[in-house]
Amino acid sequence: MSEKLRIGLAGLGTVGATVAARLLSGAVPRAELVAVSARDENKDRGVDLSGVSFVSDPSDLATQEDVDVVVELIGGEGGAALDLVERSLDANKPVVTANKAMLAAHADALSKLSVGGAVPLAFEAAVAGGIPIIKALREGLAGNDINRICGILNGTCNYILSRMEAAGLSFDDALKEAQEKGFAEADPTLDISGVDAAQKLAILSALAYGVAPDLDNVSVSGIEAVTAADIAFADEFDSVIRLVAMAVRSGNGVYHSVEPVLVKKSEPLAQVVNELNAVSISAAPLGDIMLQGPGAGGGATASAVLADIADIAAGFGRPLFDKAVSEMTESASENAPASEFYIRLALADKPGSMAKATQILAENGVSIEEVVQRSSEAGDSYLPVVFITHRIENQLLRSALIALEQQTEICNAVLALPVFAQDV
Amino acid sequence: MSEKLRIGLAGLGTVGATVAARLLSGAVPRAELVAVSARDENKDRGVDLSGVSFVSDPSDLATQEDVDVVVELIGGEGGAALDLVERSLDANKPVVTANKAMLAAHADALSKLSVGGAVPLAFEAAVAGGIPIIKALREGLAGNDINRICGILNGTCNYILSRMEAAGLSFDDALKEAQEKGFAEADPTLDISGVDAAQKLAILSALAYGVAPDLDNVSVSGIEAVTAADIAFADEFDSVIRLVAMAVRSGNGVYHSVEPVLVKKSEPLAQVVNELNAVSISAAPLGDIMLQGPGAGGGATASAVLADIADIAAGFGRPLFDKAVSEMTESASENAPASEFYIRLALADKPGSMAKATQILAENGVSIEEVVQRSSEAGDSYLPVVFITHRIENQLLRSALIALEQQTEICNAVLALPVFAQDV
Repeated sequence: MSEKLRIGLAGLGTVGATVAARLLSGAVPRAELVAVSARDENKDRGVDLSGVSFVSDPSDLATQEDVDVVVELIGGEGGAALDLVERSLDANKPVVTANKAMLAAHADALSKLSVGGAVPLAFEAAVAGGIPIIKALREGLAGNDINRICGILNGTCNYILSRMEAAGLSFDDALKEAQEKGFAEADPTLDISGVDAAQKLAILSALAYGVAPDLDNVSVSGIEAVTAADIAFADEFDSVIRLVAMAVRSGNGVYHSVEPVLVKKSEPLAQVVNELNAVSISAAPLGDIMLQGPGAGGGATASAVLADIADIAAGFGRPLFDKAVSEMTESASENAPASEFYIRLALADKPGSMAKATQILAENGVSIEEVVQRSSEAGDSYLPVVFITHRIENQLLRSALIALEQQTEICNAVLALPVFAQDV
Repeated sequence: MSEKLRIGLAGLGTVGATVAARLLSGAVPRAELVAVSARDENKDRGVDLSGVSFVSDPSDLATQEDVDVVVELIGGEGGAALDLVERSLDANKPVVTANKAMLAAHADALSKLSVGGAVPLAFEAAVAGGIPIIKALREGLAGNDINRICGILNGTCNYILSRMEAAGLSFDDALKEAQEKGFAEADPTLDISGVDAAQKLAILSALAYGVAPDLDNVSVSGIEAVTAADIAFADEFDSVIRLVAMAVRSGNGVYHSVEPVLVKKSEPLAQVVNELNAVSISAAPLGDIMLQGPGAGGGATASAVLADIADIAAGFGRPLFDKAVSEMTESASENAPASEFYIRLALADKPGSMAKATQILAENGVSIEEVVQRSSEAGDSYLPVVFITHRIENQLLRSALIALEQQTEICNAVLALPVFAQDV
């Protein structure tokens, strides 16, 4: 065996090409790139791969004797990526991947192979890009009890909300701008629906709490329903709106949600703008820390992949999780923690509407802390009205919302967002 | 040898007692506390140590056969702490310490013992308390080129500056408040002079760049000269003042400074308030990331110590640095990077003063971007005037300041602060 760790790299997109170039320049002293695999051998990627062997079938890297570690940057939740990773783990070969979709879809099977065989499967790049959040959570906070994780884990949503805020854009215009700048896909559904953030949250929760990752355990709302009016109302409360992925101890387990949240401008999470990601962690005995940085992009993702390679080269590789998913015992909770809420109604512009709405809220045990009503523009038959509630149980809020939505003669649209609180 | 790593802990102050309690509660599954040492065996520390052996001479932990790892929380740059750590490393026993002063003063000798003998010497708690910055820099960013580190590394200074800003306090009143709240020592010299931050910066620079840690390489200014008027002027430029510790590639080496800096409110570093610490790192290919959290306090420091213990228990301990200090080859640079500057003068309230001051600046190649002059109060013979310069070489600024200070008939106090820039 060579003195340096010999790397086989599958997938030569932006990230793969950056990783290859850095390895070839000696950025990880204990590792060397020996083999690559990609669809097109001859495409110019701005990096001289002439000294590296080319493998046309990526899965061959799993068994090739001169490859010690496999780096999977093919992408896709199954197919060639999954095949390569499973074969590599089977062959006791450590794997580095940036593939969040694959981990989310196949956590159980991959954890069996990796944890069962004690084969490192490193995935720093799969969550929050260049922010070393996996390492911080798993190693930097070892010895702590984690009480809450709150993350801005989707750069597309954060870009859209930031632009609505800074430039007064509508959701549609902000999305269009994000697409033009490359911060949103042509089909942005996975991002703006919150599903992408939920996949990442499930991975973080498995690490922090030992809850088996399962999207069904995450209460997910996207940002599609957030309007320019909501952004403006938030500003009146000295707040912004962020898509927050949260995993918090609640009831007898851990409650998971991804949803737009009203965040006071003085909170660190409110300062996270544009395409940045951030993760805030409340832990004991530590207290609160926050990490922020680029959550996507070639350089950020390559950075995380290189760090994983360096760890494995130093003999510090870890399996996917500390135990197989099938052996995780901590449970997900359906009890959303109590919260203040922002409730926005479109209220019919006629006598008694406001009285009726507030009566329904009161009857359902929802007490109001603040109200903002906009003046009517000529011809508007509905007026936007916003209530900020006192801290109430989620269940009370849900009942009140259902009761309000039934009053179609006084209101025709309701949006409720939790208000971010510093204490857990 | 026991299956678990057996911990010997010296020093049972707030941090030590928290670490002991966490270890006894099984917070680090692979480690167990077997021995402690402290000045007073019988003091009530709120933790039941009856199952743990007590050692009156801490240095005995170094040689005691049933101790696998020594945790040094005695404090002080020499004395019993240094003795214990040196003996432990001599005996090939891994050490965890929170002792920044000891590391700063004895980096050379300790690195020889630790790196030479390949014995782990972990010190996450020594810099920025509970923020896992050592791990992030050393492992999370492995494979990157570090271009700049900017840190708010002293919670005392940050508290004082934040309070001057938020409550309009004078420096003296803010310091007094910090002392009352336990955020400043009775003798705050090491903190407010910038020396504490410089010691931490030197350690970070050794890790990031391989520059031998040496306080003589750090250009240090404290916050004593910052007045309430400076804070108010900064606000007019939509900025705040922060004590920033910076290590940046400049010239043929790395330039190190600790000084008050004007920071735009939109910058993440400006959002770091009160006693918090933060570190912002610019790296390639990563980009910029920032970590913030509690830089001091029992819980935060204990968290970092526990993480180090967990790493060693997992077999992932590292020596103090990657090479002995005597073998570090990267050099410190005296070339401060070019910057915009905030220059505050007390200008004589008489005809021609302003003309003369601007003429001197112009003659010295300093071009002015903005000027703010306060109206005179009755009886003031000097008026505060602030200039913001265009980006200029530090050398030009220094010559201009010397020339200004010689004009005692027109000005009697000059303060110059760099303006923080996002690009390196």
